[in-house]
Amino acid sequence: MKIPIVEDILSANDRLAAENARLLADQGLLAVNVMASPGAGKTSLIVQTIDALRDHTRLGVIEGDIASRLDADTIQALQIPVVQINTGGTCHLDANMVHGALEQLPLDVLDLLFIENVGNLICPTDFALGEALKVMIASVPEGDDKPYKYPGMFAAVDAIVVNKIDLLPYVEFDLAGFRQLVTGLNSGVQVFQVSCTTGEGIAAWADWLLGKTTDRMAANQT
Amino acid sequence: MKIPIVEDILSANDRLAAENARLLADQGLLAVNVMASPGAGKTSLIVQTIDALRDHTRLGVIEGDIASRLDADTIQALQIPVVQINTGGTCHLDANMVHGALEQLPLDVLDLLFIENVGNLICPTDFALGEALKVMIASVPEGDDKPYKYPGMFAAVDAIVVNKIDLLPYVEFDLAGFRQLVTGLNSGVQVFQVSCTTGEGIAAWADWLLGKTTDRMAANQT
Repeated sequence: MKIPIVEDILSANDRLAAENARLLADQGLLAVNVMASPGAGKTSLIVQTIDALRDHTRLGVIEGDIASRLDADTIQALQIPVVQINTGGTCHLDANMVHGALEQLPLDVLDLLFIENVGNLICPTDFALGEALKVMIASVPEGDDKPYKYPGMFAAVDAIVVNKIDLLPYVEFDLAGFRQLVTGLNSGVQVFQVSCTTGEGIAAWADWLLGKTTDRMAANQT
Repeated sequence: MKIPIVEDILSANDRLAAENARLLADQGLLAVNVMASPGAGKTSLIVQTIDALRDHTRLGVIEGDIASRLDADTIQALQIPVVQINTGGTCHLDANMVHGALEQLPLDVLDLLFIENVGNLICPTDFALGEALKVMIASVPEGDDKPYKYPGMFAAVDAIVVNKIDLLPYVEFDLAGFRQLVTGLNSGVQVFQVSCTTGEGIAAWADWLLGKTTDRMAANQT
């Protein structure tokens, strides 16, 4: 009884996500859906990436949270266009929420758009937003066994950013074993290792993302 | 259109949760719903509490995860009765899943039952399981701003266990500010500070829980 209702919601979402994707493609704009557990460092990674790329490309951000506009304030202080979505209890962003946010952003002057999802390793993967790339952040202090427990998220993403590597000396985390495990679940995935506190590893991640952004802009111009 | 359906599911869940609560009360058994983000230390806290209390009370565990039986294996190695629930993608435990698990446990020889929920700071609060206490774990490396972003969880619980205090020297976390924030959201909440790695603070938490367990047993005998 429940499955058809869920499928209706998801297929309605898919139609809206396809509309968002078309709108973004028309603008040559690369949208990145950033997903992670609460406190893994989504906003910190976006802030570090803005710092690394703002002289090379034009960035915008959609912030998603259950409540508060703390993260949008952080981004606005950097003078980057930002819209905060408060889901009011809903555990993920959906294509309709993102559609409303896109209408409030100056899309024609942006090249790269981060969409920071609600902190949740489960529900966000079920809802396409119209993004070109899905990225997850895995935080070192969460432990190296998370791919066993949340396989859907690890299998769904284009890139995994392992954050808080500055804490590796203080917690148990087998980096080589973790990389082996995630590539077993998702053979094409890119894995980056960063610390948003020290800045280590940010350059490699930002370079990769800039490459994807310029590819998207080039595709739009041909 | 959607709201009535959600309410139907929730009220069906509430009826089953009330049934679980009666079953547990009949046995004088205290059930504790343990909630947290992925990797905050739910299983580690349960393991430390088993170690602290196993000579004083009879413990059992229900482990909830999307996939894998890693956590149940950890508990079984301690020779504690345990049932693993794999939700197969669902982002929370519900009363029906717990009902099935209760049937597989020797309830008549248990006093304290941990129900480890799926790692998620949002959805689990909507689904009563029949528990007597709701406890959440907040992990220091997640940051001290989480109550702003996930107020529903912080407001719903009887106790907050701040875990990984051994990492306080290496991350920014204002413990006094955090305590003030959570008691603002939830004036009656108990706050404990522990490290499941060093064992610091476990005794105070375990003592509080043992008090609740013996109160429940006494209530059953009168």
